[in-house]
Amino acid sequence: MSKPGLPLTDVSACAYAPLVREPLSSAAAADIAAKLKALSDPVRLRLFSLVASHANREACVCDISGDFDVSQPTISHHLRVLKEAGLLASERRASWVYYSVVPEALNLISSVLSTAADDMALGAPA
Amino acid sequence: MSKPGLPLTDVSACAYAPLVREPLSSAAAADIAAKLKALSDPVRLRLFSLVASHANREACVCDISGDFDVSQPTISHHLRVLKEAGLLASERRASWVYYSVVPEALNLISSVLSTAADDMALGAPA
Repeated sequence: MSKPGLPLTDVSACAYAPLVREPLSSAAAADIAAKLKALSDPVRLRLFSLVASHANREACVCDISGDFDVSQPTISHHLRVLKEAGLLASERRASWVYYSVVPEALNLISSVLSTAADDMALGAPA
Repeated sequence: MSKPGLPLTDVSACAYAPLVREPLSSAAAADIAAKLKALSDPVRLRLFSLVASHANREACVCDISGDFDVSQPTISHHLRVLKEAGLLASERRASWVYYSVVPEALNLISSVLSTAADDMALGAPA
C-alpha cells in the first residue's frame, strides 16, 4: 500500500543477514547503527513508541505534546531526527502534522536483532 | 547455566511490553535506550556482531583485532562500552580476555522491537 508523504527508503528486512549468522559488513553496520542512534535517546524512544502504539501507528503532534516533560521545540527536534533516520514519516493535514511509523525501517532493525535472539534461544550453532 | 565472570543483569525479555502495544514508560525507555546507544556506533555494532557470530557466541580479543581498521586501544574502549551496557560479558583466561554475548540483553531489545514488527506485519490493532 503506498501512502502519500512517505519518504523514499532503501531499507528492507531481507537486505542483511542477522548479526549472529555472520559479521555485519561496514555498510550494513553504518546503516543500522544510524537507525539505532536515532532510537538511543530515551525521549526519542518514547516518542517513537507513542506514535507506534497510537491508532493506525500514526499520531498528530497535538496528541503527543502533553505526555512529555520537554518543550514543544524539543519534541519537534526529536521527531525530525526520527524522520531523518527513516523511522517516522510525516504528513501535514490542515493545521497539524501527523507522524507515522515506517514499517520497513523497524522490520530491518528487528530482523537483524530478533533472529539473533531466536537463534540464541534455540542454541543454533554459530 | 551460570558462568563465572558474567555481570549481574536485571534485564528480562518479559520486563516490558513491546513498544507498539503501549507507550514505553520513562524507566523502560531509559534502560533500552542505553543499550541501543551502545549498539549505535558502527564499529561497536560490528564488534558485537563479530562476537555474536563467533563459535559459542564468544571471541578472544586476539580473534577480533585483525578485522578492524582502528587501533587496539580503540577496540578495547568499544568492547568496554558494550560490556558496561550489559551486552557483552568478559572473562580472562591465561593471557587473553574472552568476550561473550549476554543473551538476556539481546532478548530484551529484540522483544521490544521484534514483536512490534510482527504486530505491524499482521496489521494488529494499536
